[in-house]
Amino acid sequence: MADKMKVEDVLAKVDGWKAADGDTDAITKTFKFDDFATAFAFMSASATQAEKADHHPEWFNVYNTVEVTLTTHDAGGVTQKDIDLASKMDGFAAKLS
Amino acid sequence: MADKMKVEDVLAKVDGWKAADGDTDAITKTFKFDDFATAFAFMSASATQAEKADHHPEWFNVYNTVEVTLTTHDAGGVTQKDIDLASKMDGFAAKLS
Amino acid sequence: MADKMKVEDVLAKVDGWKAADGDTDAITKTFKFDDFATAFAFMSASATQAEKADHHPEWFNVYNTVEVTLTTHDAGGVTQKDIDLASKMDGFAAKLS
Amino acid sequence: MADKMKVEDVLAKVDGWKAADGDTDAITKTFKFDDFATAFAFMSASATQAEKADHHPEWFNVYNTVEVTLTTHDAGGVTQKDIDLASKMDGFAAKLS
Repeated sequence: MADKMKVEDVLAKVDGWKAADGDTDAITKTFKFDDFATAFAFMSASATQAEKADHHPEWFNVYNTVEVTLTTHDAGGVTQKDIDLASKMDGFAAKLS
Repeated sequence: MADKMKVEDVLAKVDGWKAADGDTDAITKTFKFDDFATAFAFMSASATQAEKADHHPEWFNVYNTVEVTLTTHDAGGVTQKDIDLASKMDGFAAKLS
Repeated sequence: MADKMKVEDVLAKVDGWKAADGDTDAITKTFKFDDFATAFAFMSASATQAEKADHHPEWFNVYNTVEVTLTTHDAGGVTQKDIDLASKMDGFAAKLS
Repeated sequence: MADKMKVEDVLAKVDGWKAADGDTDAITKTFKFDDFATAFAFMSASATQAEKADHHPEWFNVYNTVEVTLTTHDAGGVTQKDIDLASKMDGFAAKLS
């Protein structure tokens, strides 16, 4: 099992993420795209990686915006799994933006 | 433009939806599936219909759960567009459940 | 209904497409991406636009490659609908490549 | 690495698949759905499982039809990986049909 890490240590390894409001044990980032189709492309690519890692985001979408929250429930906080998924999502978003 | 309807009139035409908490001008429903892959299949089918109608949901997903909120921003409330998208989403969910 | 156009006139308006082998009434292009997840993102974005236009591609995918063939069956050849979908797919591919 | 199996032994473990034309080292099945959106839902669910297993289909889609061919390139034939992915795809198709 992935070990719980300090949020600040996790945030130091990803770009543009922050601690979730009122929750020091999760990280969050809001992605904006040109339109719904592009936002959905981001979600589709991310979905395959989430399932591959068996580590799934909490995410909210409306039109071109996707708000993602990551935490590792088993560990009661954030872990390397969150860093890995955040990095993959950042990679897809960089391509699509 | 679709005309604003009374929420109760909209709710009478769809199954299992309710008025959004603290928002009488939107309808909401929570869908549960067997797993993430199935929830994502639901979102993918729904995404094509949302884009087709140029009417997009607000939706939140974590693992096998998808919480959908529908409203028609242009009309300042719920309209036939919400009924139509809700019905399509219900159809996909019925298949996938 | 969209009017049938000459393939060469269609090809003049899109970039990197060619006449389908043995079929002068269809256009084709092969897209390559970094990996399967990115190819699938391309397909997901394209799927929403295909459904929106009610004009669907014939496409083949294996891993990072997507071979797309476009034609307008109702018109017995290629039409403005194919130009439009080809252009949208090119746009998504440009972002994702 | 998954070991190569006899096609007939693989076909005995999955339902409705057959040996690919002119290729005794691959299995194939054609899935039909109500419409494009449902076919795409099938592909989306399957995509997550393919990526999870790092084992990807060759598939062709037009409108409501998805033709899937499975083989394990590393093994030079069909393996347990193909049985596993075929079974998952059959499960999604059963839900969506």
